[in-house]
Amino acid sequence: MSTNLRIDGARLTSRLADLARIGATPEGGCRRLALTDEDRQGRDWLVGQLETLGLDTRIDAIGNIVGILKGQLDGPAVIMGSHIDTVGTGGRFDGALGVVAGVEVLAALRDAGLTPKRDMAVIAFTNEEGARFHPDMLGSYVWAGGMSVEAAHREVDSEGVGLGSELKRIGYEGAERPGFLPAHAYLEMHIEQGPVLENEGGGLGAVTGIQAITWLELTLKGRPSHAGTTPMAYRKDPGLAAARINIFANELTKTIPHQLANSGVIRVQPGNVNVVPETVVMTLDLRNPQDAPLAQAEEAVRRFCAELSERDGIAITFRDLARFPATPFAEELIAEVERSAGEFGLPIRRMISGAGHDAQMMARLCPTAMVFIPSIGGLSHNPAEFSTDEDMVAGANVLLATAWRVANA
Amino acid sequence: MSTNLRIDGARLTSRLADLARIGATPEGGCRRLALTDEDRQGRDWLVGQLETLGLDTRIDAIGNIVGILKGQLDGPAVIMGSHIDTVGTGGRFDGALGVVAGVEVLAALRDAGLTPKRDMAVIAFTNEEGARFHPDMLGSYVWAGGMSVEAAHREVDSEGVGLGSELKRIGYEGAERPGFLPAHAYLEMHIEQGPVLENEGGGLGAVTGIQAITWLELTLKGRPSHAGTTPMAYRKDPGLAAARINIFANELTKTIPHQLANSGVIRVQPGNVNVVPETVVMTLDLRNPQDAPLAQAEEAVRRFCAELSERDGIAITFRDLARFPATPFAEELIAEVERSAGEFGLPIRRMISGAGHDAQMMARLCPTAMVFIPSIGGLSHNPAEFSTDEDMVAGANVLLATAWRVANA
Repeated sequence: MSTNLRIDGARLTSRLADLARIGATPEGGCRRLALTDEDRQGRDWLVGQLETLGLDTRIDAIGNIVGILKGQLDGPAVIMGSHIDTVGTGGRFDGALGVVAGVEVLAALRDAGLTPKRDMAVIAFTNEEGARFHPDMLGSYVWAGGMSVEAAHREVDSEGVGLGSELKRIGYEGAERPGFLPAHAYLEMHIEQGPVLENEGGGLGAVTGIQAITWLELTLKGRPSHAGTTPMAYRKDPGLAAARINIFANELTKTIPHQLANSGVIRVQPGNVNVVPETVVMTLDLRNPQDAPLAQAEEAVRRFCAELSERDGIAITFRDLARFPATPFAEELIAEVERSAGEFGLPIRRMISGAGHDAQMMARLCPTAMVFIPSIGGLSHNPAEFSTDEDMVAGANVLLATAWRVANA
Repeated sequence: MSTNLRIDGARLTSRLADLARIGATPEGGCRRLALTDEDRQGRDWLVGQLETLGLDTRIDAIGNIVGILKGQLDGPAVIMGSHIDTVGTGGRFDGALGVVAGVEVLAALRDAGLTPKRDMAVIAFTNEEGARFHPDMLGSYVWAGGMSVEAAHREVDSEGVGLGSELKRIGYEGAERPGFLPAHAYLEMHIEQGPVLENEGGGLGAVTGIQAITWLELTLKGRPSHAGTTPMAYRKDPGLAAARINIFANELTKTIPHQLANSGVIRVQPGNVNVVPETVVMTLDLRNPQDAPLAQAEEAVRRFCAELSERDGIAITFRDLARFPATPFAEELIAEVERSAGEFGLPIRRMISGAGHDAQMMARLCPTAMVFIPSIGGLSHNPAEFSTDEDMVAGANVLLATAWRVANA
């Protein structure tokens, strides 16, 4: 029966366009940093959609938004989801598409007058990007029991504003306990955010898992001094040390297979033209499809920093911002995704996810899989992020067919 | 007669301590960024000191504060001065000592009931540090006619706040035309801000001139992308380019004699852990005692950036923040400084100034010289900046003797 079910493609794309107007940027992207007023507007819009569909709509204590379609049985639910927060220079698709697609799946079942055997639900998780609060994937991390609500509420942004107080301010500290809805399976549709599918000639991706991620914050302390009167040999310049670390981490990616590295944050104090810096705070985002080589990369960075500190007299301290092992998804659910694509005659290929997703947190609770659709030019976290309507509808139909089959198995 | 004149050392150090209380930081330093409320308080304190001495006290259109001791003749004045603004992590001596010493010279003459042949004056110049508004030495630059009042008022700080509006806000947009007081000679006492005098066993410095300074702001534009899904080869990372430029500029100092380089400002946008940066703004402070090698250093940096831009696809634009040629001081006045030290039996050595000073602007108008006193540990632009009372009094006595002799010659 599942093959007769279809997403309303026009409604899917128009719903996505409605959400994209909230926090829209002049460049054509979106800026809905977690728990800002723009995020609040996006949340209000989403809750309106869920209630219009007559779904049982709940908010939990970390601000995760849950819309439930009751099934014939009590028991664990087939959950779909993603996030609606964005990075500072975000696009219209990252996260938002997965939430809207989940809404469309439940809307399609409503339209068809179908009631699944198991409960089905869609969740928009809080602060997936980690662009405002650390760690990223915080909402699903708390949902999966990896972090306490109290600890999450104590997180602060770069201005020192607390996550808990922002949740209250925007009115999304809900009554439910995170994880209150038991999970039978989790499915997430997302844009690839990379160039692989497009370069392979299009088609969908059946995601086999998520690569391991380590986020480090380094604080480098030197000695502030006058840039005109302090001989070079007397200087202790943490800015120069940060430059060497950034370059070293990038060079590492040439020697460790599939290794990635990025330094996205570099803050220099006091930040005057004629003052040799006193302190630099920088971050390193290290990723690898496997845990062992990632650990090897981190070890190399720490060894390099220890030598640099010794040689140049720069005090370097490390703080973990995030640390997630490689997350393999459930073989039987990956196979269901492939089967659904086959029923629609859609090309699909297995691939690893380069990005972290809420799915890797949900994989702690239940069999999990993801459907990727191509990102044109491989761009993401960028206003130019784009995927075609055709691919979005194809991905959403695969999500619908797979979720429906699993909910009735 | 000059050798009978003495500074009141206790009053000199207590006046400096009074000024140091304004904008005092927990670390023991001072933070009086130009035209902030702290700067305003320092200015109010200084004007009070000048008026108490019965000096003719004037403010010009750029906020320079002038205290004049009328002489027996009309005509150009012997001017002493420095500045009272500080960098963000400033100390208690940089600039403030030169102003307070000038006040003490005029106070000593008042106490002795002496009237010089020529007018004598002390000036506190606006925004010498350049820590808030560019260029540095702005007040003396405008005084010397290097920049128009209108152009200076249009300068904005990093928050976009205008210099002109801040001058009005703190009540220091005066009625006088900058440069209204003709200069016969200019003398400035200052801490060395470097380690040379201390390493040479102490004693004073007779400054022969100021090294050439070039301040460049570089804006590097790459392509923001996702740090987990964008293969390294696809990235255009301006943060990595900034790191290479910083290291290149520092390596240059090993190949060009006496060359200095500092990157004190590095701002990364959007500044998220998992986003390859889109834009980096960085500064380079390049100095050399001679103009030709400095030009050679800048040329090498620009060539390196052109190659980097070509190779890595990073768009790099340059903006001049400041550009001052090497400034030799007046031989006859340097000799007068040495003679005064000799009269007091104080050791003194000729040296170049590593830092820019208001004296290099005044040198455009009249014979100019400076007196340096040792900076313990060579530290400056640092809360730990320190000079001994003994050295301060010695330097102030040399300033007094030299200014008095020149004012009566």
